[in-house]
Amino acid sequence: MALIVQKFGGSSVADAERVMNVARIVTETYKQGNDVAVVVSAQGDTTDDLIEKAKEINPDASKREMDMLLTSGEQISIALLAMAIEKLGCPVISLLGWQAGFQTNSAYGSARIEKIKTERMLSELDKKRIVIVAGFQGLNKADDLTTLGRGGSDTSAVAIAAALHADRCQIFTDVTGVFTADPRKVKNARKLSDITYDEMLELATLGAQVLNNRSVEMAKKYGVELEVLSSLERESGTIVREVAKMEKMLIRGVTKDTNVARISVVGMKDVPGNAFKMFSKLAAKKINIDVILQSIGRDGTKDISFTCSEDNSKQAVALLEEMFSQEGAVVNCNNSIAKVSIVGAGMQTHSGAAAKMFGALYEAGININMISTSEITISVIIDREYADQAVSAVHKAFFD
Amino acid sequence: MALIVQKFGGSSVADAERVMNVARIVTETYKQGNDVAVVVSAQGDTTDDLIEKAKEINPDASKREMDMLLTSGEQISIALLAMAIEKLGCPVISLLGWQAGFQTNSAYGSARIEKIKTERMLSELDKKRIVIVAGFQGLNKADDLTTLGRGGSDTSAVAIAAALHADRCQIFTDVTGVFTADPRKVKNARKLSDITYDEMLELATLGAQVLNNRSVEMAKKYGVELEVLSSLERESGTIVREVAKMEKMLIRGVTKDTNVARISVVGMKDVPGNAFKMFSKLAAKKINIDVILQSIGRDGTKDISFTCSEDNSKQAVALLEEMFSQEGAVVNCNNSIAKVSIVGAGMQTHSGAAAKMFGALYEAGININMISTSEITISVIIDREYADQAVSAVHKAFFD
Repeated sequence: MALIVQKFGGSSVADAERVMNVARIVTETYKQGNDVAVVVSAQGDTTDDLIEKAKEINPDASKREMDMLLTSGEQISIALLAMAIEKLGCPVISLLGWQAGFQTNSAYGSARIEKIKTERMLSELDKKRIVIVAGFQGLNKADDLTTLGRGGSDTSAVAIAAALHADRCQIFTDVTGVFTADPRKVKNARKLSDITYDEMLELATLGAQVLNNRSVEMAKKYGVELEVLSSLERESGTIVREVAKMEKMLIRGVTKDTNVARISVVGMKDVPGNAFKMFSKLAAKKINIDVILQSIGRDGTKDISFTCSEDNSKQAVALLEEMFSQEGAVVNCNNSIAKVSIVGAGMQTHSGAAAKMFGALYEAGININMISTSEITISVIIDREYADQAVSAVHKAFFD
Repeated sequence: MALIVQKFGGSSVADAERVMNVARIVTETYKQGNDVAVVVSAQGDTTDDLIEKAKEINPDASKREMDMLLTSGEQISIALLAMAIEKLGCPVISLLGWQAGFQTNSAYGSARIEKIKTERMLSELDKKRIVIVAGFQGLNKADDLTTLGRGGSDTSAVAIAAALHADRCQIFTDVTGVFTADPRKVKNARKLSDITYDEMLELATLGAQVLNNRSVEMAKKYGVELEVLSSLERESGTIVREVAKMEKMLIRGVTKDTNVARISVVGMKDVPGNAFKMFSKLAAKKINIDVILQSIGRDGTKDISFTCSEDNSKQAVALLEEMFSQEGAVVNCNNSIAKVSIVGAGMQTHSGAAAKMFGALYEAGININMISTSEITISVIIDREYADQAVSAVHKAFFD
């Protein structure tokens, strides 16, 4: 007998039929003799619909009242799921975030969990009830409702798994697991049976939107074993955990990110502090910088290129022109690029990975613009039009 | 400066425009220097829509989970109203039933308020905030959400007014007050400026659905001054309170109830206990009896006639046939009748009221079937087809 935490997103409970499907998954797990705690998000588009209602009345509503509004969405879905489980004849109880003991700070809209008082959940599990908890929400010291922000229900599930020392935390999504590349684009993409927390974090950062990063970080911190699997297709998913040895498969996945722009400042004066000024101004505007490349230019000047998300590029260019145009520097922006990356903890001990990746791109005739590496990733910036082709070529080199 | 409690029903907050309208009423009251606590129901058809969702999944869902589901409706409307008031620039905070301190028993679906812990509401009012409270809901000892049942938001408002010793509790509806007769049917119907609690209770019982009886009873018990008024037309409404002298206007209103049936058992054996058996059996089936008439029949038998709601008549007839058909009695049912009543506390001291009512009906050529009186009402049973005509004739006799 084990304690299993299961999390179902909004699309998994979007209508009556899907709620019944989730109820069947939960009760099957329960009937196998497990204690089960379930976290659910709001149904389908409920949260967006509520935001729309609020905007119609007051686009500048306080975050406190927005949280009061939005937390109703999960309240509806926990009640409906509990009713579905009642129908299947299993003992069940639904709990709001505060009833499940979620204490948060007061950052409405993006609250941090401070503590989970587990008494109520434990007492319900002791009564052999399936416990359904509203994700994404908690209560602050003033006894007011808060929400955890984007991906909050994943975080709720991992936090419950950590607090209850669950044996596993299953995150049900609309994909059957984590793949070596996007299976809709790369025909030989393989599902990974397991992956480390760091690899999962890199994959998420690099564009594979399966798990929310904050929940993976929390899982890593508390050693919660995650499983990513599908609520519609019943097959085992990908397990996220710390694995001792993993040398057999060098890399774990190939991803692309097309929301990238490269900005170059050409002909800056080569004086100390220019780079510092530049990046601190960008940071102040909350523009995140990814790959940076600095080179010596002509006549005692220097050039700095970097990448940021395309969404931020316009703002970044305006800022840099204001800073450097009077000293004769030119700011260029290229929005037609993409970042293709390979991820894998095994890479550290296999120096051939970079060579293999570059070779695959060369053979496919794809020019590399910039290169960036971390302990477990190698990323290249290339023309956006070749992104899918590059992912396929690199995937083939490592997996076929 | 006064403390005013205002209550708005579901149709008053049905859409963004109406929510803004309510926000204007509330902020005007606040800007006049009053402390304001507001109770709102769920928007428009929200509650019905939620019930529909539940039925689709499990028609026999537990009441505990139904309450978990339904309380989300008021949560949405308090947040939206608070946002609307924020937009109008007044300080405001929304509170769920439990945050406002509503402690109830555990009768899910029809919980009774046991206590209101007023600390939070008082502290928010002290900060000069408008307090918006979710009607219809509370929390039981197990820390689970409960609902107060039908008309629950009226009850919430009166309970808050009683607990905070408010100067007035304004119940906003879609009519401008309490009328001497239905203004859509009787052209000279007048709005009453005030009315006693008992008169209001009788009017509600006799079919004038303006205020929920439970809330009027509570208002009477705690001496809460009520005002019934419209959220759309800005004019003063009808005040419900104990008035010392009220002799000038003899009666307060004329009402009709068409959900009435008369059942007669003709030719029962005239033995002791038959009436007792009959009415206790009906009571056991929760069939409420109104007017009762017993008369001596032929050959040592007796006849008993009574009225009940038409909804219950079929069940009552079946029950009585089972009981009395073997002793030769015949059960008749007449579903084409109506009850027309006059209500007024002044009636006790004016014996002419009954004569005036019967005279008006006689002049209109309407035959009286049965008569029933209480301290403050006189009711007659007549053919249903003459009901509106009877109300007009009686209203004319007293008010024109």
